[in-house]
Amino acid sequence: MSNFIEPIAKLIGAFSKLPGVGQKTAQRYALKVVNMSESEVRDFAECLLDVKRKVKYCSVCGNFTDTDPCRICSTRDRSLICVVKDAKDVLAIEKVRDFKGVYHVLHGVLNPMEGVGPNDIRLKELVKRVNDDNVREVIVATNPDVEGEATAVYIAKMLKPLGVKVSRIAQGISIGSDLEYADEVTLSRAIEDRKEL
Amino acid sequence: MSNFIEPIAKLIGAFSKLPGVGQKTAQRYALKVVNMSESEVRDFAECLLDVKRKVKYCSVCGNFTDTDPCRICSTRDRSLICVVKDAKDVLAIEKVRDFKGVYHVLHGVLNPMEGVGPNDIRLKELVKRVNDDNVREVIVATNPDVEGEATAVYIAKMLKPLGVKVSRIAQGISIGSDLEYADEVTLSRAIEDRKEL
Repeated sequence: MSNFIEPIAKLIGAFSKLPGVGQKTAQRYALKVVNMSESEVRDFAECLLDVKRKVKYCSVCGNFTDTDPCRICSTRDRSLICVVKDAKDVLAIEKVRDFKGVYHVLHGVLNPMEGVGPNDIRLKELVKRVNDDNVREVIVATNPDVEGEATAVYIAKMLKPLGVKVSRIAQGISIGSDLEYADEVTLSRAIEDRKEL
Repeated sequence: MSNFIEPIAKLIGAFSKLPGVGQKTAQRYALKVVNMSESEVRDFAECLLDVKRKVKYCSVCGNFTDTDPCRICSTRDRSLICVVKDAKDVLAIEKVRDFKGVYHVLHGVLNPMEGVGPNDIRLKELVKRVNDDNVREVIVATNPDVEGEATAVYIAKMLKPLGVKVSRIAQGISIGSDLEYADEVTLSRAIEDRKEL
């Protein structure tokens, strides 16, 4: 890589910090930037800085936002809370357009192996909302993996004494998939959680 | 995409100007930036601006550089010039490490269909170098496509009267490839340009 002069080499380094970007792709991006007009590059840099300057976390739900509380918290049904691991998960659920409640972003899940305990994710804030906002149901939509499951169970135990309904998103065979290729754990869960027709 | 707040939507727009980056990839990059530390983002923006501030084109060869003349022009054999279309092509040839001469970057090739004529690429500068620098050979390494070929022929006609040797990189079957899969034009050229063993 010593073929590149320093400013280009540095930009290649910056691009390769992006997810899924290797050396070759980073080079391609950097050479594109070299050929951009000065105003285009200035705009690009400004967009980067703006995201850091303007994007904050909503003090209620923890999702990112440029207003506080965020648009979702200030306009929707606050008695129904969907708990997710990351802000990205909010985007995924918003795409469905079915959910009319608000969110609670944990910024992580319980993971004792990596030293993430109940005080490291936004659980206290969740309890406070349940107490203050007259919440009728908390849907736990953490991922269906070991840490996500453990976090769901923990939240259920923590919130039930407060008299709120706690539910978990359904797990089973994906719509449109093929039984033949489903893994055993998913299949076993799908049979266990069968619904009467 | 209306799901994204404005600063993030703008950054997604900026990323999707990079080559080969679609909406989904740009989103992934933008969300990564949201989660970067403030100093990381500032460094990233600084790298972008630095490239525009510090990277200039070498006044001799037209390659990008942060010194003028560039390191290649100031240290290597200036009597042997390799003519290429883009700065990217310089990198490709430098990787081989065989070439000991200097470069001349045209910043384009002749393309009458898109209105690119002899005055739109760095041909005058090439003639000046041949006249001034006691050049013994010019190797034309434009791409083996219609425009690249036409440009090579044009350069040969233009420079021969000046008494300089003009050569063209060899075309034929790629090393390690399979005759079966070579296209007819390449194969026909490979037979025509055969070498005695």
